[in-house]
Amino acid sequence: MSDATPSAGLRVRIVGTGLIGTSLGMVLSRKGFQVSLDDPSPTAAALARDLGAGVLAVDTIGVPDVVVVAAPPDVVADVVARELSAWPDAVVTDAASVKGAVLTALQDRGADLSRYVGSHPMAGREKSGAVSAQVDLFEGRSWVVAPGPQASAVAIDLVRHIAEAAGSAILVMTPDEHDAAVAAVSHVPQIAASLVASRLRDLPSGAVALSGQGIRDVTRIAASDPSMWTQILAGNAPAVRGVLESLAGELDAVLEALRNLESDPDGGSVGARAVLARTVADGNAGHARIPGKHGAAPTTYATVTIVVPDEPGALGRLLRDVGEAGVNMEDLHLEHGIGQPFGLAELSVLPAAAQPLITALTSLGWPVHE
Amino acid sequence: MSDATPSAGLRVRIVGTGLIGTSLGMVLSRKGFQVSLDDPSPTAAALARDLGAGVLAVDTIGVPDVVVVAAPPDVVADVVARELSAWPDAVVTDAASVKGAVLTALQDRGADLSRYVGSHPMAGREKSGAVSAQVDLFEGRSWVVAPGPQASAVAIDLVRHIAEAAGSAILVMTPDEHDAAVAAVSHVPQIAASLVASRLRDLPSGAVALSGQGIRDVTRIAASDPSMWTQILAGNAPAVRGVLESLAGELDAVLEALRNLESDPDGGSVGARAVLARTVADGNAGHARIPGKHGAAPTTYATVTIVVPDEPGALGRLLRDVGEAGVNMEDLHLEHGIGQPFGLAELSVLPAAAQPLITALTSLGWPVHE
Repeated sequence: MSDATPSAGLRVRIVGTGLIGTSLGMVLSRKGFQVSLDDPSPTAAALARDLGAGVLAVDTIGVPDVVVVAAPPDVVADVVARELSAWPDAVVTDAASVKGAVLTALQDRGADLSRYVGSHPMAGREKSGAVSAQVDLFEGRSWVVAPGPQASAVAIDLVRHIAEAAGSAILVMTPDEHDAAVAAVSHVPQIAASLVASRLRDLPSGAVALSGQGIRDVTRIAASDPSMWTQILAGNAPAVRGVLESLAGELDAVLEALRNLESDPDGGSVGARAVLARTVADGNAGHARIPGKHGAAPTTYATVTIVVPDEPGALGRLLRDVGEAGVNMEDLHLEHGIGQPFGLAELSVLPAAAQPLITALTSLGWPVHE
Repeated sequence: MSDATPSAGLRVRIVGTGLIGTSLGMVLSRKGFQVSLDDPSPTAAALARDLGAGVLAVDTIGVPDVVVVAAPPDVVADVVARELSAWPDAVVTDAASVKGAVLTALQDRGADLSRYVGSHPMAGREKSGAVSAQVDLFEGRSWVVAPGPQASAVAIDLVRHIAEAAGSAILVMTPDEHDAAVAAVSHVPQIAASLVASRLRDLPSGAVALSGQGIRDVTRIAASDPSMWTQILAGNAPAVRGVLESLAGELDAVLEALRNLESDPDGGSVGARAVLARTVADGNAGHARIPGKHGAAPTTYATVTIVVPDEPGALGRLLRDVGEAGVNMEDLHLEHGIGQPFGLAELSVLPAAAQPLITALTSLGWPVHE
């Protein structure tokens, strides 16, 4: 990360100094951009300034080259339209997680669409506000640049430049492609996780106690904020509806197969079992497409399981020993048993590294299972 | 774990020497039980014997006190019925993941139900067969004991005794309670994960590249075996159908809300947004019921995020430093950025431990974020 780039001196106006706006100001300021900060709340803007995100808009940097609107989803289009009018030579982008609806709203307002390029940094935290900002929030994350058909090449390049300076990997797609993608990889998974978790509300405690790692993983994101997700889902209603309808269609087929088997438990129709098998097999195929580490095709890792005592430092000792064996873990899952004072650690490593690791850990006295 | 218990000498016949049967034989033999092994495949039985799981059934231990049937789900009822007839004084249990269907099938066959107690050890691996067996497979896992109404108290106690000797925590419930519980906490989550993953099959690669940790978690179990899951879902069709219908009903309401918002994107009805917000809020409530570590109520942990270089031993060094700070991690998530040579480690710790941990790691030069 160089602190001086050819872009040093580019003037960036950030409107909205929450988590995203403040983090962006911090990294761009460090890279030599001239950053000004504006927010409906003077207190929020001052906090961002104190965190090193830039100067206040009233201490103006002059006419901005680029305006980044990092406002809540439901006001983004209004703020973008206002900024396009206020700065007739500036390129304006936004950071909202839905892109088609913003573009349509700007068209309806007759905004100058040659200077607007929507974008979506795929970065966030469970905490919000300037106080949670991080200079490396965008480092290594994807940043979608989603120009509309009227956006100029110069405008697109400027927005790409901002995202690259923040440390992100750029993905260029149309607003519709973006919205369809996040519907499938983010919005529909959120709805599915919420619906699965909601089945537990009225379950007896003894039944909930059977929860294992599977349902924990499936429902982890079910702990998300309802009001934020209402804005996101409402903003991407057409794309989410499309993906969810195809899911609902297959769900109906599963239900029909289960009813068929229920009425004839001994045999059922061959077709009913085939529907269940195909549903799981199709899930295998979809799951296999999710990129692995570093965006590469997923690798099949070997799993090494170790029983770890539940005491301070035990896991650290184990992983120090793994490191000293010269092995890099690709992933780690911890599993804790009910009522037992220890956990199982499942280490994923490249297949060739499994046997040397098992030998090394066994010689150090760890109870290892391949 | 004592190697000699009051049960030493109890005769246990295990039918089916796959992963579950062999692992059980290994732990019971070590605890001083007399274990015999039987399997339709003489080779499989001999492998289990060589792994220390017991003696072969032909080298009989005499009349068994308990028979454990660890056969594939679709033949369990037949094998249990045969064993009840063959050993008129023995208690018989099984390890199938569905309980009501087995009991009904035994009733239909006129079996002696006073000596049958279904059970379900909640233990498994992604690998199967005797070769994957582990003496500690059941250690710290839940083991459901699900007696039918005709089961005798003596029979129930014997099956509990076997499960406890294997190191499991016992949960007693009726077969119907068991099947309803696993439908909600295991079978429906599996279907949901498969259906979400299946949406990725026909997505452009650029769209799949937007996959983040959320969809990875939701779809991890979508990599499961289709034929095993077809047997499980078919065997628990009534309970799964019930839970899935309630999910489908709420899914329809979400779809209706999305259609409403799509036809009137500016306003939509207040009711449509309320449906979306309630769906996510209900998911919050259900998710909050999942027990935390050791079966206790879930604790809210503080999260400390560290940027970890992607090199052998880096994570081990970090976790050694965590251990030396005297802090016990409750959980750990690793996140790898696209195209970036490092990862983010998110450590969950008790809230009171967060600040001391941050101070300790910062002083050692780790880039830490609360």
